[in-house]
Amino acid sequence: MDSRNGLTIPDDQIQSFFDSAPPLKDRAEIRESLIRFIEFNSQSSGVRRVVCVTSGGTTVPLEQRCVRYIDNFSSGSRGAASTEYFVKAGYAVIFLYRRGSCQPYCRALPNDPLLECFEVTDESHIQVRESHSEVVKGAIRDHHAAVTGGHLLKLPFTTIFEYLQMLQMIAISMKRLGPHAMFYLAAAVSDFYVPWKSMAEHKIQSGSGPLDMRLMQVPKMISVLRKEWAPMAFCISFKLETDPKILVDKASMALKKYQVHAVVANELLTRKDEVIVVTSNGNISVRRDKSQASTDVENPLVELLVGRHSAYIKDSDT
Amino acid sequence: MDSRNGLTIPDDQIQSFFDSAPPLKDRAEIRESLIRFIEFNSQSSGVRRVVCVTSGGTTVPLEQRCVRYIDNFSSGSRGAASTEYFVKAGYAVIFLYRRGSCQPYCRALPNDPLLECFEVTDESHIQVRESHSEVVKGAIRDHHAAVTGGHLLKLPFTTIFEYLQMLQMIAISMKRLGPHAMFYLAAAVSDFYVPWKSMAEHKIQSGSGPLDMRLMQVPKMISVLRKEWAPMAFCISFKLETDPKILVDKASMALKKYQVHAVVANELLTRKDEVIVVTSNGNISVRRDKSQASTDVENPLVELLVGRHSAYIKDSDT
Repeated sequence: MDSRNGLTIPDDQIQSFFDSAPPLKDRAEIRESLIRFIEFNSQSSGVRRVVCVTSGGTTVPLEQRCVRYIDNFSSGSRGAASTEYFVKAGYAVIFLYRRGSCQPYCRALPNDPLLECFEVTDESHIQVRESHSEVVKGAIRDHHAAVTGGHLLKLPFTTIFEYLQMLQMIAISMKRLGPHAMFYLAAAVSDFYVPWKSMAEHKIQSGSGPLDMRLMQVPKMISVLRKEWAPMAFCISFKLETDPKILVDKASMALKKYQVHAVVANELLTRKDEVIVVTSNGNISVRRDKSQASTDVENPLVELLVGRHSAYIKDSDT
Repeated sequence: MDSRNGLTIPDDQIQSFFDSAPPLKDRAEIRESLIRFIEFNSQSSGVRRVVCVTSGGTTVPLEQRCVRYIDNFSSGSRGAASTEYFVKAGYAVIFLYRRGSCQPYCRALPNDPLLECFEVTDESHIQVRESHSEVVKGAIRDHHAAVTGGHLLKLPFTTIFEYLQMLQMIAISMKRLGPHAMFYLAAAVSDFYVPWKSMAEHKIQSGSGPLDMRLMQVPKMISVLRKEWAPMAFCISFKLETDPKILVDKASMALKKYQVHAVVANELLTRKDEVIVVTSNGNISVRRDKSQASTDVENPLVELLVGRHSAYIKDSDT
């Protein structure tokens, strides 16, 4: 990439981001589990579709020995719910998630399930409280089935540096799947960061008035993903805004700028009830079916995107 | 307070912090559960000692409809472990903790205990995996005993605004306990914040170069706690630094400045093995007993502080 026309990011910005990143721990183990997972799902009769779902917010350390960091709000429930529907639709899912964020099959559980759902009987056995029995049973059973069946690979991250290095590894290893690969980039990725080398080594000292900080923009890696890492993959990005007036415009701009196949536009306050899927063929409003208490907006959203992905694969084959 | 000599904080800074804070949700419920808890623990034969343990990091929102925030690193394991030892020593504990941080009695569990410790049998029963049986049983039993026995009240916070408003409520309601009250302020409290009224309403837009931010200092509320909220309480604060060269000096300065009874000084890299308790009578190094695999530094630390608290109560009575 050498274009500087605004549609692509200069190579040097991306290079400098990765050069400045602290090296990923467990790189070899992650790569190996990825290769195994993709291998397994390519051997099944026909190629199984593989989707990488990213979920939760990334952090930006403000100090090398990190005490303070900037975080992006995201519970991860969008990614966790969507993962369940993708597995149901027959996809193998690589779930790249923020440590501690919402997990697939666990959305109906209370915050602290172990302490709230279980009790120790007089005979010193552990039993699940009657009131939580079905939810807990379902969560353990479905999660176990997805993981042991080879349909779900979970990879955790915390910082923006970990996230982007892992996304690069995943994308490069999914390249061979061609149009059968999909990216569903629901994670809330930091827009600004402090380059590792210009970061304070020690905790920033308080005590002398206000603190002024200068944060650099994180290069938007979606362009590189589209052009280099996995150019044939079906690619969905997300746009979150709090101001509904600018939401669809920003999503349409992202669609063109990053050349993705759809942008899911969501507003902070209404995102659990409605999203707008912005495509080059027009915008589709997707709503939760409010007549049924247990449904969520991710159900029709994933259904719509799976249909689009099918059409995309068909187009690519002809 | 009207002193501006550096030892106390001007009233207007504190007033302006609380005025600028968004109002606490569930204020009435929190106050009621506090009053009930302290009432219950004052009725037992003799007055039971009550300690407020704060734990985990506070967040600083950067936008009113919060997408981004600054967070302080803290797993909360210091506070969770100490809570267990205080309960064991006969204290009633008000555990003021960051949502999602480490919980008392759960330290030995894996990150995702429900998914990792349990399985569903062929007969569709849930059972704990043999390998985790003892840890899980212990966690559920001990946690349940502490809460139902009225020895543990858990109150969650997320933002610096929630934390300081709740700390104020707790301290004021503990005032009546006189020297039997203790504060063990292990939470990692933000030093800098953006006043609510000067905060952007909507998500800060990226796309136009670097982001410059100005953060204001959070007024140090320990002084007010000591002088007004609960002046007779035994008060321990914590100092975390990454640079060992400045650690003890900073802790000694905090001891004098905030007039607390001890400052626990810990360095980021070694904090699980050693802390230094800084008091006006000298500094005591407290180390984990490495000959026993299962011990932690909080065990001797809490033991030491309980002894000091006993002496303090005795002194106050005479």
